[in-house]
Amino acid sequence: MRLSTLRHACRNLPTPSVHQPRTGVRVFGLAKSSLPLGPSSNSQLLLRAASSVSGTTSAEKAPKLGKQTDGPGYENTIRENVQRTKEEMVALQRGHPALKPTLAIIQADEDDRLLELNKKMAGKIGLNVTQICLPRECTEDEIIEEVLKLNEDPRVHGVYLHLPPASLTSRVLNTLRPEKDVDGVSDLNVGRLVRGDMNQGFIPPLANAVMELLARHDTPMEGRIVLVVGGEGPLGVALQCLMQRRGMVVLHSRRSSEVLQKQANAVVLLAAGHMDVPPTWLRPGTAVIHCGSALMTEDHGMEMSGVGPLTAALRMQNVVQSSSRWAQGQQYRPWTLRSLKLQPLSPVPSDIEISRAQTPKPVDQLAQEIGLLQEETEAYGRTKAKVRLSLLDRLREQPDGKYVLVAGITPTPLGEGKSTVVIGLVQALSAHLKLNSFACLRQPSQGPTFGVKGGAAGGGYAQVIPMEEFNLHLTGDIHAITAANNLVAAAIDARMLHEATQKDKALYSRLVPSVNGVRRFSPIQISRLRRLGISEIDPSALTPQEVSSFVRLDLDPAKVTWQRVVDTNDRFLRKITVGQASTEKGHVRETQFDIAVASEIMAILALADGLGDMKTRLGRMVVGSSRSGQPVTAEDLGVSGALAVLMKDAIKPTLMQTLEGSPVFVHAGPFANIAHGNSSVLADKLALKLVGEDGFVVTEAGFGADIGMEKFFNIKCRASGLRPNVVVLVATVRALKMHGGGPNVSAGSPLPREYIDENLSLVGKGCSSNLRKQIQIAHLFGVPVVVALNVFKTDTQAEIDLVCQMAKESGASDAVPCHHWARGGRGSVELAQAVKQAGSQPSHFQFLYSQETPIVEKIRMIAQKVYGADDIELSPEAQAKIDYYNQQGYGKLPICMAKTHLSLSHMPEKKGTPTGFTLPIRDIRASIGAGFIYPLVGTMSTMPGLPTRPCFYDIDLDPVTEEITGLF
Amino acid sequence: MRLSTLRHACRNLPTPSVHQPRTGVRVFGLAKSSLPLGPSSNSQLLLRAASSVSGTTSAEKAPKLGKQTDGPGYENTIRENVQRTKEEMVALQRGHPALKPTLAIIQADEDDRLLELNKKMAGKIGLNVTQICLPRECTEDEIIEEVLKLNEDPRVHGVYLHLPPASLTSRVLNTLRPEKDVDGVSDLNVGRLVRGDMNQGFIPPLANAVMELLARHDTPMEGRIVLVVGGEGPLGVALQCLMQRRGMVVLHSRRSSEVLQKQANAVVLLAAGHMDVPPTWLRPGTAVIHCGSALMTEDHGMEMSGVGPLTAALRMQNVVQSSSRWAQGQQYRPWTLRSLKLQPLSPVPSDIEISRAQTPKPVDQLAQEIGLLQEETEAYGRTKAKVRLSLLDRLREQPDGKYVLVAGITPTPLGEGKSTVVIGLVQALSAHLKLNSFACLRQPSQGPTFGVKGGAAGGGYAQVIPMEEFNLHLTGDIHAITAANNLVAAAIDARMLHEATQKDKALYSRLVPSVNGVRRFSPIQISRLRRLGISEIDPSALTPQEVSSFVRLDLDPAKVTWQRVVDTNDRFLRKITVGQASTEKGHVRETQFDIAVASEIMAILALADGLGDMKTRLGRMVVGSSRSGQPVTAEDLGVSGALAVLMKDAIKPTLMQTLEGSPVFVHAGPFANIAHGNSSVLADKLALKLVGEDGFVVTEAGFGADIGMEKFFNIKCRASGLRPNVVVLVATVRALKMHGGGPNVSAGSPLPREYIDENLSLVGKGCSSNLRKQIQIAHLFGVPVVVALNVFKTDTQAEIDLVCQMAKESGASDAVPCHHWARGGRGSVELAQAVKQAGSQPSHFQFLYSQETPIVEKIRMIAQKVYGADDIELSPEAQAKIDYYNQQGYGKLPICMAKTHLSLSHMPEKKGTPTGFTLPIRDIRASIGAGFIYPLVGTMSTMPGLPTRPCFYDIDLDPVTEEITGLF
Repeated sequence: MRLSTLRHACRNLPTPSVHQPRTGVRVFGLAKSSLPLGPSSNSQLLLRAASSVSGTTSAEKAPKLGKQTDGPGYENTIRENVQRTKEEMVALQRGHPALKPTLAIIQADEDDRLLELNKKMAGKIGLNVTQICLPRECTEDEIIEEVLKLNEDPRVHGVYLHLPPASLTSRVLNTLRPEKDVDGVSDLNVGRLVRGDMNQGFIPPLANAVMELLARHDTPMEGRIVLVVGGEGPLGVALQCLMQRRGMVVLHSRRSSEVLQKQANAVVLLAAGHMDVPPTWLRPGTAVIHCGSALMTEDHGMEMSGVGPLTAALRMQNVVQSSSRWAQGQQYRPWTLRSLKLQPLSPVPSDIEISRAQTPKPVDQLAQEIGLLQEETEAYGRTKAKVRLSLLDRLREQPDGKYVLVAGITPTPLGEGKSTVVIGLVQALSAHLKLNSFACLRQPSQGPTFGVKGGAAGGGYAQVIPMEEFNLHLTGDIHAITAANNLVAAAIDARMLHEATQKDKALYSRLVPSVNGVRRFSPIQISRLRRLGISEIDPSALTPQEVSSFVRLDLDPAKVTWQRVVDTNDRFLRKITVGQASTEKGHVRETQFDIAVASEIMAILALADGLGDMKTRLGRMVVGSSRSGQPVTAEDLGVSGALAVLMKDAIKPTLMQTLEGSPVFVHAGPFANIAHGNSSVLADKLALKLVGEDGFVVTEAGFGADIGMEKFFNIKCRASGLRPNVVVLVATVRALKMHGGGPNVSAGSPLPREYIDENLSLVGKGCSSNLRKQIQIAHLFGVPVVVALNVFKTDTQAEIDLVCQMAKESGASDAVPCHHWARGGRGSVELAQAVKQAGSQPSHFQFLYSQETPIVEKIRMIAQKVYGADDIELSPEAQAKIDYYNQQGYGKLPICMAKTHLSLSHMPEKKGTPTGFTLPIRDIRASIGAGFIYPLVGTMSTMPGLPTRPCFYDIDLDPVTEEITGLF
Repeated sequence: MRLSTLRHACRNLPTPSVHQPRTGVRVFGLAKSSLPLGPSSNSQLLLRAASSVSGTTSAEKAPKLGKQTDGPGYENTIRENVQRTKEEMVALQRGHPALKPTLAIIQADEDDRLLELNKKMAGKIGLNVTQICLPRECTEDEIIEEVLKLNEDPRVHGVYLHLPPASLTSRVLNTLRPEKDVDGVSDLNVGRLVRGDMNQGFIPPLANAVMELLARHDTPMEGRIVLVVGGEGPLGVALQCLMQRRGMVVLHSRRSSEVLQKQANAVVLLAAGHMDVPPTWLRPGTAVIHCGSALMTEDHGMEMSGVGPLTAALRMQNVVQSSSRWAQGQQYRPWTLRSLKLQPLSPVPSDIEISRAQTPKPVDQLAQEIGLLQEETEAYGRTKAKVRLSLLDRLREQPDGKYVLVAGITPTPLGEGKSTVVIGLVQALSAHLKLNSFACLRQPSQGPTFGVKGGAAGGGYAQVIPMEEFNLHLTGDIHAITAANNLVAAAIDARMLHEATQKDKALYSRLVPSVNGVRRFSPIQISRLRRLGISEIDPSALTPQEVSSFVRLDLDPAKVTWQRVVDTNDRFLRKITVGQASTEKGHVRETQFDIAVASEIMAILALADGLGDMKTRLGRMVVGSSRSGQPVTAEDLGVSGALAVLMKDAIKPTLMQTLEGSPVFVHAGPFANIAHGNSSVLADKLALKLVGEDGFVVTEAGFGADIGMEKFFNIKCRASGLRPNVVVLVATVRALKMHGGGPNVSAGSPLPREYIDENLSLVGKGCSSNLRKQIQIAHLFGVPVVVALNVFKTDTQAEIDLVCQMAKESGASDAVPCHHWARGGRGSVELAQAVKQAGSQPSHFQFLYSQETPIVEKIRMIAQKVYGADDIELSPEAQAKIDYYNQQGYGKLPICMAKTHLSLSHMPEKKGTPTGFTLPIRDIRASIGAGFIYPLVGTMSTMPGLPTRPCFYDIDLDPVTEEITGLF
């Protein structure tokens, strides 16, 4: 037993002599613990009528109250209980070596012997004890504050309120979380006991002790009559319920009487006042159990006499039970997920109508269903919650679930519905196959929601709900990224201005000012000094040269690579001139705004595996280079701590749900062209732990498999250390026809007839070109592939059958049509079964290249093996950058190709499987914080525009019903 | 009685004949309602042994089970109960005419007679009934879904689960909110009954009915012996608790026996199985109450026999009780606010250290303490929650609390601590005087937090906590404003480009496209047509001229007044050129970014009084004018619906707390120079209702009273209709010395000695100039003034006394020193008492000018009466704008002066009370959406910059503890 916390000074009084009898309110035995259970039950004593067999009672043979205890039998009862609990402890700790079952005691005033007894018992059993000592005159609010802290403390499994009766108010008792209420005194736990639900509550230890003693006295108990005197509150009720469940007949009275006593096989005295049981009233063989007086027998030590030790032992048993339930909560278990019923309509209504027609589960309920603890979630309204990363620590030992990646064949410009496949698949796995499963999705940029593209919450009957929450601010992560990104930008320009307009000395005295006469470097400045090779930390001791190198980042305005961002489709910000106000003294500069999700900070959020890792990555972001060619980082600007502060909540994934009530993490959405286009590592890690080893986590890679999947494997899996089990490759008859030679498909124009009428020849050619190639790409990485044909209403059965047949011939483990858009999870059950099957196969995952491979070779391997190029061709700029990166030590970073997603090649118009081309590398850039190098194959727009009639024309809000219309 | 909701088709079967006896599981009487209370108690019958007086029992005299009921007595009991409940209803509805006490019934399968009985009883008493019919084979999840909906529905006061026993699972029973569980069957309510807490739970109607019948049979009940047979679950326990509380002796057994029955004065049969009570076993005069058989007597109608009608009556009584509790919850009551204990240290630690050392209450607990319903809040993490505006509707009838404005004398550039006074005052009012009180504060811009100024959560021991949450993203309102503002900006430039590059026809066919062959105007376009005077709504019927005027906003690029915003101190964006990318085809334009809080949308958020009002204001924002001089609005751009959608959550105020646990609303923070600088109307309105008539709401006006307070009265109070009761005028010895002629005070330089040493002469001069003038300004509006001297540690007692004395001589109701910064609420108790006293005086509030006054006259009145100017002088630009605004019909808008806050005049260096000056009006602008005209007196910066060493150098995050350092 260790006393780990003593919040207030605790007077440790010498243990009072065992033989000194004490009376009054504060007494030995069960004083405080029993009080919440009844108005005034204070101590206890087991008493057995002397002649239990003879059938005759005489005055002299009658027991003398308080004198005779059933010594050895009682001792045995305690010993057996302690022994059993100890064994349970051993078993529990064997299964959970890191678990330290802990009882917290809140006490007011000095220590007393009852407390000592409980601590001793806890020690015997091997429990940790945390003791919180409050002053005697503490207020209800102070007690509540301590209870709330213990409620939130995951290390505490049970709380014993060792407080004066007046302090055990309803508010105090009911503030304690029922799962830590090992005395079973909260209203909820009393109610559970009454209803007989013992999976959740606790049997009050004193009631349990009385039952143990009765059982020792009388077995079978069925039909025996027990007189319970006093104790109208929870203790009396608990006892009666327990007795009735054993088939006993219970006589409950405020006071004893001869008539009543004569009936009874046993008498239990609960109230303090009416303790006198004249022995002459007792039938022979009657047991008398005394819970209500302040007596301690003189001839027995505390360990021996009184119901106290047994009650203490049973309290500890409850703590062990609570710990064991906690541990079970950590284990894999099939969730009992409340599915939301879906009644798909035909024709399928608009996305927002479908979303609105479904009432999402309260997110705290969903969180509970999937095994999250209350302290692990932070609700954001009713339908979204952030999940704390501490979960990873709690579930450290839990094996991961299966990791499923949804990728696609090369898409048409209209998109082939990967997100709907992810959501439909998870709806099928969880609501229909009843398997634990999680969808991990990207958070979409808000800009396109109001532009052309609309939202990204899936569609039809495979959606994340409420879709407007998903598509708009969500929990503010992108806003945080915008704020962080633009703080860096503001710091860059302001710093260049200040350096340009001040001499070294002035800069130095401003950067390291005297505060109350003392000059000190801030920790962030000390980091910069270290990078400069300056070990001095006394500001006055730097040489003028050191001062100069410290104060001057000497950023070259032409080599600033950091851009500002907004989460708006604002084409007029694609190229701008800043600094034109007179206050900026002519330091104008051409620059640009990107859409917020193109920020390197978004890529960092997606790849970070914890707060520390994110902070390090944010600090090492390179924002430009100095006139002498040295990279300048965010930490050099002194802004990295502020960035971490701005991003501290964004790092927690957001929990939402599908239309059928399955859990979804929405977290991070880096651009799929200049970044890696995958949702966050952290969301996947959390989800894999939550689903447990038989569960499934389904996530998505942006664009076609040649881009999104390749980056998922080579960048994201490398960063996370996670290994995928299955690839689901999404195809559509429409895209296959395009690859088979069909006419152009473009947004805004009507689809040509080839795409509406059956055309098996085009479909077949598309399968044998693009589909086959993308399957082969997945196999390059050693992962089994299931082809999911996202069925449109114009697809014919023959077309569907042909795709499935040819996919299997091309090496797919399976190929199935899915109808999630029109039918929800039920329409994807076949896919779910195929994924389950493929997930049970071994995966032989391998990277395409090793870190050590030179940059050029890495690019070449991707171009040749993935895209099917003959070779690559580097521009002189690209070659120069490679040399620079090698020189700066960035050569080991993985490659993030910035290539069109509309073709396997760099030429968007080349469909099918282009061959015989050389991939041109126009330029190369680097995201050092995120940790990848991105070669540019063509021009990538990082700022979408608004068309003549953006989506916002249809978006509206009814101010009375608060209903939104026009989102899709 | 009205049946208001029938979610599923409900088969209304013909009522079965009254005389037809029915048996089986589905029986008349109490079938369903009683089942949750015990395993199988199905129906009921009151039976009285025949010879209750004689003392002799014979077989022929013994009652025949199921034949004799105590007809008239029983009928009376029902009648009396119905009568009492009806009277309670009448009283309740007299006090709350809008309240419609409502019982919701969830039933599966067809209607039955028990249901009919309950509905009839509800009708008798005048309750509303909402009936939800589920199919017989409904799942647990479906029931849960309905229960959750009823939980959330504020119109429903009680729920009766009329379901088959198998459906009444623990999950179903415990999903129902305890305050609507009128059958008292949830674990929590059973626990409450056991502990005897009847302020919250409900007595199960059947148990209550049995008690009524027993009381009618035997009074006094004390000492009587009752045999309860069967019913081990909640019903049995509830009954026993009630009996014991009446002093009865309870004999509880699974089955009856002669021995037991002979003891009993009454027998209650709860279980279905053991119903036979051989009359010979009964003592004469014994009452037998039968709750467990499926019997309906043949000779009595349903209204007459069975415990059913009485139970139904008592269920309705519970519904009335629940409604009455709900109504009481709406009433003013002193809060039972848990104060957080403060133990101020000396010297006072840093703000972030003080904030971190305090554990805030969970925000849902705070919400409950101040009377918010669960469905009225939306938590954002553990310490912040948005509060729904539906509250205003619920508390419509509640009188407002006292409305206190904290304003200041003309400040030094260092600020004089108005926010700390607001917070300290509320801490004193609530934690020390125990008065309901609320602080309403502005949300600060995040930019300055990382620049020079630091945060704005108060300071020292008067803070809003957690201060980092307050100062950073909060609940995303400013981010939403940024997104909305920049969507308008992007729409403006994109629209100008599209109009410049397309002919009318092309524009028209894009703006009103054919979707599936149909062309339609969107509602937002129809609004524009109306403004253009075009009544046609068929797109094909417009004349070419109408088409042209519809498609061309014809914005003049030189007259676009809308700016982009970021919430970052980014000085390089003060003047920029946009549109320089080739995709924008040379349409470059000079423009600027403002700090986000300078957006007109922020001013709208602060002034809107509901979602509808906000939407209207957003739509009428003028973004520039056409080449022909017509104003162009956000609605003309088609973007107003999207803006409302982006702002739908921002309109809800955010609840936080002070260091001592008092409630704070943080909502809106418009710039104090170009806008009105006050927090939101909605937060004040919500808070005034929540505190109730004896409570206090304290809010703040930016800058000195000449600016912030004047705008508070003339703009904010005009918009809200609220009337202030007290002005607290904050002064510091430092600022008074400056006004008395002390040397310059500036940020970053050490304070001159005059400000550190005692100098009564400077203080006295400062009091008789600036302090006196500011008091007079408040009196212009007819509001009593309390001067709060914010004490610094360098202030001497003589200086403090002098200020207080002179303030009172200048007409202040009172003047007191406050020490909240060093001591928390305890340091502001004197101020709190002074405010309470001043609040009890009548306020004779009046506006300075009427709406109808011409623009020039309004400006002149402010300049002369408030600032003390001789006159105003309009530039030609200003005069031209006034003419334009008059012509456009904006002449009735109030005036929002954009003037320096560092002097009463327009010259920042003129301290004290400047006189003999003419106020120059350089230009005039208008925020038509927000609803004011703002004359510019000098140049106002709308974009702060970053200094050489911004705050962010000290800001950091510990990745392990997640603790933030360096914020202040």
